[in-house]
Amino acid sequence: MSAQQDPGTAAGQRPVVAAEEAALERLAAAVAAVDVDEAPRLPGGFAAGAQAAGIKPSGRPDLSVVLVTTPAPASAAGTFTSNRVQAAPVRLSRAHLAATGGSSADGVPAHGTARAVVVTAGSANAATGPAGDADQLAIAGLLASAAGCAVEQTLHASTGLIGTRLPVDRVAAGIASLVPVGLAATDAALGAVARAMMTTDNRLKAASALVALPAPGGTRQVRVSGVVKGVGMIHPGMATMIALVLTDASVAPRTLATLLRPAVALTFDQLTVDGDMSTNDTVLALASGAAGADPIEPGTPAAAALGAAIAAVCRSLARQQAADGEGATCRITCRVTGAADLADARAVSRAVVRSSLFKAAVHGRDPNWGRVAAAAGSARRPDGAPASVDPDSLRIALAGTPVFAGAPLAFDAASVSAAMEAPDVVVEVDLGMGRAGAEAWGCDLTEAYVRENAEYST
Amino acid sequence: MSAQQDPGTAAGQRPVVAAEEAALERLAAAVAAVDVDEAPRLPGGFAAGAQAAGIKPSGRPDLSVVLVTTPAPASAAGTFTSNRVQAAPVRLSRAHLAATGGSSADGVPAHGTARAVVVTAGSANAATGPAGDADQLAIAGLLASAAGCAVEQTLHASTGLIGTRLPVDRVAAGIASLVPVGLAATDAALGAVARAMMTTDNRLKAASALVALPAPGGTRQVRVSGVVKGVGMIHPGMATMIALVLTDASVAPRTLATLLRPAVALTFDQLTVDGDMSTNDTVLALASGAAGADPIEPGTPAAAALGAAIAAVCRSLARQQAADGEGATCRITCRVTGAADLADARAVSRAVVRSSLFKAAVHGRDPNWGRVAAAAGSARRPDGAPASVDPDSLRIALAGTPVFAGAPLAFDAASVSAAMEAPDVVVEVDLGMGRAGAEAWGCDLTEAYVRENAEYST
Repeated sequence: MSAQQDPGTAAGQRPVVAAEEAALERLAAAVAAVDVDEAPRLPGGFAAGAQAAGIKPSGRPDLSVVLVTTPAPASAAGTFTSNRVQAAPVRLSRAHLAATGGSSADGVPAHGTARAVVVTAGSANAATGPAGDADQLAIAGLLASAAGCAVEQTLHASTGLIGTRLPVDRVAAGIASLVPVGLAATDAALGAVARAMMTTDNRLKAASALVALPAPGGTRQVRVSGVVKGVGMIHPGMATMIALVLTDASVAPRTLATLLRPAVALTFDQLTVDGDMSTNDTVLALASGAAGADPIEPGTPAAAALGAAIAAVCRSLARQQAADGEGATCRITCRVTGAADLADARAVSRAVVRSSLFKAAVHGRDPNWGRVAAAAGSARRPDGAPASVDPDSLRIALAGTPVFAGAPLAFDAASVSAAMEAPDVVVEVDLGMGRAGAEAWGCDLTEAYVRENAEYST
Repeated sequence: MSAQQDPGTAAGQRPVVAAEEAALERLAAAVAAVDVDEAPRLPGGFAAGAQAAGIKPSGRPDLSVVLVTTPAPASAAGTFTSNRVQAAPVRLSRAHLAATGGSSADGVPAHGTARAVVVTAGSANAATGPAGDADQLAIAGLLASAAGCAVEQTLHASTGLIGTRLPVDRVAAGIASLVPVGLAATDAALGAVARAMMTTDNRLKAASALVALPAPGGTRQVRVSGVVKGVGMIHPGMATMIALVLTDASVAPRTLATLLRPAVALTFDQLTVDGDMSTNDTVLALASGAAGADPIEPGTPAAAALGAAIAAVCRSLARQQAADGEGATCRITCRVTGAADLADARAVSRAVVRSSLFKAAVHGRDPNWGRVAAAAGSARRPDGAPASVDPDSLRIALAGTPVFAGAPLAFDAASVSAAMEAPDVVVEVDLGMGRAGAEAWGCDLTEAYVRENAEYST
């Protein structure tokens, strides 16, 4: 297994360590102050476009390209699935970032430079053996020719059925007609990209923030935008699904990577639809620098502001994914407070939104808080150790009503059930063990989820 | 938190270490040779009985008692949930075993002596605070009086809704009429116990083996029997559900505990219905010694034979649970071979049967093997490290048909789909990394599971 295929070096796979806790807490606070607009808005320095290339049997759009239009290629960073079975596009993107930039061996996500990104939907090109790798490399060559860049400056993502090959001839024809004449530097073009990435998604998912970064002599306005697909096989190892985050900020690859990692940890990593980790999870961030000015230096207030905007965009995308979870009728948000440390808070919040039984209870708008207690008590930290949970100090509130505080509380089940009809069912878990907190997002478990996934490949 | 409440000392929670691998492999081979009868058969030295005490709203039987009828109390061993939120009966049973026997600090499960076991169904008595502990202690006192033994010689298990109290007055009336005059030393009485334990179970689950143990001057025949309940909230931390294993063999508490631990590791620990770990998981083994002879010494051929019989009974019970999983239409068996070590084999087989997406695919009889590859690649060992899985050496067979061998294989989807109509869908995963193997059991994910669990408490 070659170096770029070793998921052990995936930056995201490292558990959060104590030294990172304070930084993540500051970031969470900063995220809350960022104003996010849930619409596709293309930052400067990019052109985008999509079309129906014939990968999806439905004939819907399934091929999208984002091209960097600035004179220099964009800074790029990526986090990828930590599944040991990795798709061909994941392996190729990791190899290309390694070729154009730094390695991820020191815990910083993979980063380098990029000129073009291609996303295919309808076939995951995962578990396809050497032939699948050859297919993806052929697509890279075609894209590089059309974009006038080196092969290593192409990045790749794909989504769809595992074990099926990509129709390279159709993808080639699509790239030939898209790049560059079919691309546009418009918000609608980014919307088309988001739509062409969708598989079982019901809703287009996009987010954008306009932030004023501290700059010499005043501030400089930059845009950070993201689009995402993925509402099933969602349980990130440390990166998830396919997300593209674009900004016109000027920032070096390594700095961009150091901003991406905590943003992903705080957002996509706290999302689960069904507990199933994908082979194709990919989050790519590209910074064109079209907003001008000198590159943002790490550790500066400008870097912090950009990092908060990136995290706020990722958080919005993750919450949109949860709300659109396969078969879901509502989003579930678990907000943990009073944890001994951040790792506990993250583990407990994830365990609650992952619980099939609690998810089914929410579907029935059944205030069955015992399943929250059981899920919290079963939470395991990344090293397999149990999270510190003690029923004597545990408090639970469901849809705003306290239901447990070391012992069951009397409450009006009918009114809590009615409150659970909201599109976002919030469960608050106070562990009473310390001061750390975290959020995680999921969705209810429905008959529609089962039907959809019993019929997917046949 | 007092010592008996610390789940960190739950013996089963320790991961399997390399030194145990060879022993577990020998045990797995020995288990295959044991002839198991799936019927309730009460061993000598016990009386049993059940009745409807009024805990279940349905009015069905919900209280059962097993009494040890030999002059000396039985040797007893137990493994319990490693959930940090533990039910009152779990805490009390652990305290009683600690009071009558050895601690579990050295990795041997809790063990001591016992005269009576009471199982209640319809209320878990979990997350009920100090009042719940007091309720269980009151029940212990009543049972001890009726059975004529010390309070510490009573063991407890309960199942049902989390967060609800037990109706102690009804349980008291039930114990008064059951013990001892309502008990019988018959197979039917053990069947009544199994039936009274059921909540969402559809089928009575029992298993029994008659084994000839090597003994001075020939062999001695002993019986090992088990009953179990539990088809939802099934994803053991290292013990699971409620199982009673009874034998008339003569064996010291500590020896019994050392035989129980690998049996549970090989069987109940490899079972998942929905990935949700219970607060009430309990496996209790009692040995009456009614078959006579000197106690079986650890490390002897007789101990190995008894251990194989215990494991074979547990394996049959676990497989019956999987087949009766909430809403399930079939059992799923994942058989892993070629693993680098046993921990990998166990982790991968569990990850496959836990995958919601693969479970849904099996429900649709859809040979979507890509979900098996994705689940295998996501497997984590108990310490959080990824299992060694390499797609290049991976081989998958579904319902007897090879479908993947480093690359997708051509196969007739219709005939594999037809083969998946069997009541036991077997998926074979050869990791090609070594010589270790393991099995795990689960069931398909159905609309009926969702309906059942959206409506459980309301």
